[in-house]
Amino acid sequence: MAEPEQLDEWKMRARNWFETLCTQVHDTFETIEKSATSSIIKCPAGRFLHKDWKRKGGGGGVMSTMSGRVFEKVGAHISTVHGNLSPEMCKKIPGTEEDPSFWASGISIISHMWNPHIPTIHMNTRMLVTNKYWFGGGADLTPMLKTRRCQEDPDNIDFHAAMQATCEAHAVADYAVYKKWCDDYFFLPHRGEPRGIGGIFYDNLNSGNWEKDFAFTQELGRTFLSIYSSLIERNMEYKWNEEEKNEQLIQRGRYVEFNLLYDRGTLFGLKTGGNIDSIFSSMPPNVKWP
Amino acid sequence: MAEPEQLDEWKMRARNWFETLCTQVHDTFETIEKSATSSIIKCPAGRFLHKDWKRKGGGGGVMSTMSGRVFEKVGAHISTVHGNLSPEMCKKIPGTEEDPSFWASGISIISHMWNPHIPTIHMNTRMLVTNKYWFGGGADLTPMLKTRRCQEDPDNIDFHAAMQATCEAHAVADYAVYKKWCDDYFFLPHRGEPRGIGGIFYDNLNSGNWEKDFAFTQELGRTFLSIYSSLIERNMEYKWNEEEKNEQLIQRGRYVEFNLLYDRGTLFGLKTGGNIDSIFSSMPPNVKWP
Repeated sequence: MAEPEQLDEWKMRARNWFETLCTQVHDTFETIEKSATSSIIKCPAGRFLHKDWKRKGGGGGVMSTMSGRVFEKVGAHISTVHGNLSPEMCKKIPGTEEDPSFWASGISIISHMWNPHIPTIHMNTRMLVTNKYWFGGGADLTPMLKTRRCQEDPDNIDFHAAMQATCEAHAVADYAVYKKWCDDYFFLPHRGEPRGIGGIFYDNLNSGNWEKDFAFTQELGRTFLSIYSSLIERNMEYKWNEEEKNEQLIQRGRYVEFNLLYDRGTLFGLKTGGNIDSIFSSMPPNVKWP
Repeated sequence: MAEPEQLDEWKMRARNWFETLCTQVHDTFETIEKSATSSIIKCPAGRFLHKDWKRKGGGGGVMSTMSGRVFEKVGAHISTVHGNLSPEMCKKIPGTEEDPSFWASGISIISHMWNPHIPTIHMNTRMLVTNKYWFGGGADLTPMLKTRRCQEDPDNIDFHAAMQATCEAHAVADYAVYKKWCDDYFFLPHRGEPRGIGGIFYDNLNSGNWEKDFAFTQELGRTFLSIYSSLIERNMEYKWNEEEKNEQLIQRGRYVEFNLLYDRGTLFGLKTGGNIDSIFSSMPPNVKWP
């Protein structure tokens, strides 16, 4: 374990980064909204609404959501929480054998787009501190149309390439392991189908060099913002028809099924009295089970 | 335990009843569709579509769904299945200590209506046979508008009164216990709110007199059909506005949350390789999480 002063500095830097990245995400997505003058949805450019929340046991966060003309609904939130974990949670979280106290800071983003040609994305990164400390997170892409939910689609090739390049630029990250982790995690056993086309997922990252682990986590955030902005811009002026919109709304049902049946973060939040608004802000705005 | 011949007769009669009731439900709901000439949704009267399915381990069922101009989506299904329960399931199901074989027959109905003034209903009854035998089931009502989701609404008073009268006409049924069971079961802990306004719920009903238990189960089916038809007819020509429709779509999200997070039947089905189409046929056709 690091010296307390050292750890405090790291916690501050991690938190500052998640907040900085979140502001960059807000700015970038609002700029996209403004640029979409010929968009099919006729309404003013969206702006993020920000809502502070406090956690009973300690800490809190800012929930930021936007409904616009490109983004049907997007959430980009930060939170920094601390306190004591329940005995049940201590069994699952490393470094809590002798002391249940924890600190966690992170960013999480999920987007649901008007245009069914633009994929849905999920990204989150976080730093955890108990008697140990580590980073975790990931980014994965869900194209909403079956014709585009394949590994051969240029968007998906570029997304994977961006994730791979990010991992390969950082010796602490193992792309093959992180890619498989993502595929294994974002899978719906009851349907025997993956949620999307994958990405990367990592957890318990502590290489022994905090600076390097942090640098990778930061770069994943930058990569996410850059590649997703480019995928939006490529697809946002595509015309779509009612059939495609319908397909998107049905595909969103899989997202709901995954989140409520399997997602560890969602179930953890719901079962430990988390902030309902914040947890459910990732749910799609419109969904169909025909 | 009963003599095998006796039990076979009971199983046949129970199955026949569930099938008969299901046909009555189809006929009644189709008649309502036909009668709705001045309905706000301009489309032809709906008809049930029927789809047979087989269960791998033995048995199967008929899944019947309708999308019409009064019913946005309704499922009214029967199934009769048999085989061996997994060791894990045997721990939960009575009478399987020495023999994992089981037989089950039942009916299940969930409705999602166009008109937000018409409540959603859920009804199911079933007979189970292992080394024991019993009936279970229930019916509960979910008004979709907040102003009508209260115990004082005349619809809800009448619904409860119908359930109470049904129980009170049958000495084997304990209304107070069944009502509380329903309230306890259809509750969303993460929101601290009930799913609807309640109804009745019962399980493991074996009073020692199969005829009496069966008679109660049959009457619950008849009561459901009669009271729900009357609630539909009272409300189906109510005009509604966009705000009310929106409220309904949001309230349906609670239904999804309950089914995927807590409903024993849904989770049991999904985790034991049940028929996905049939399990998800109860999901609302359109839902919002704004």
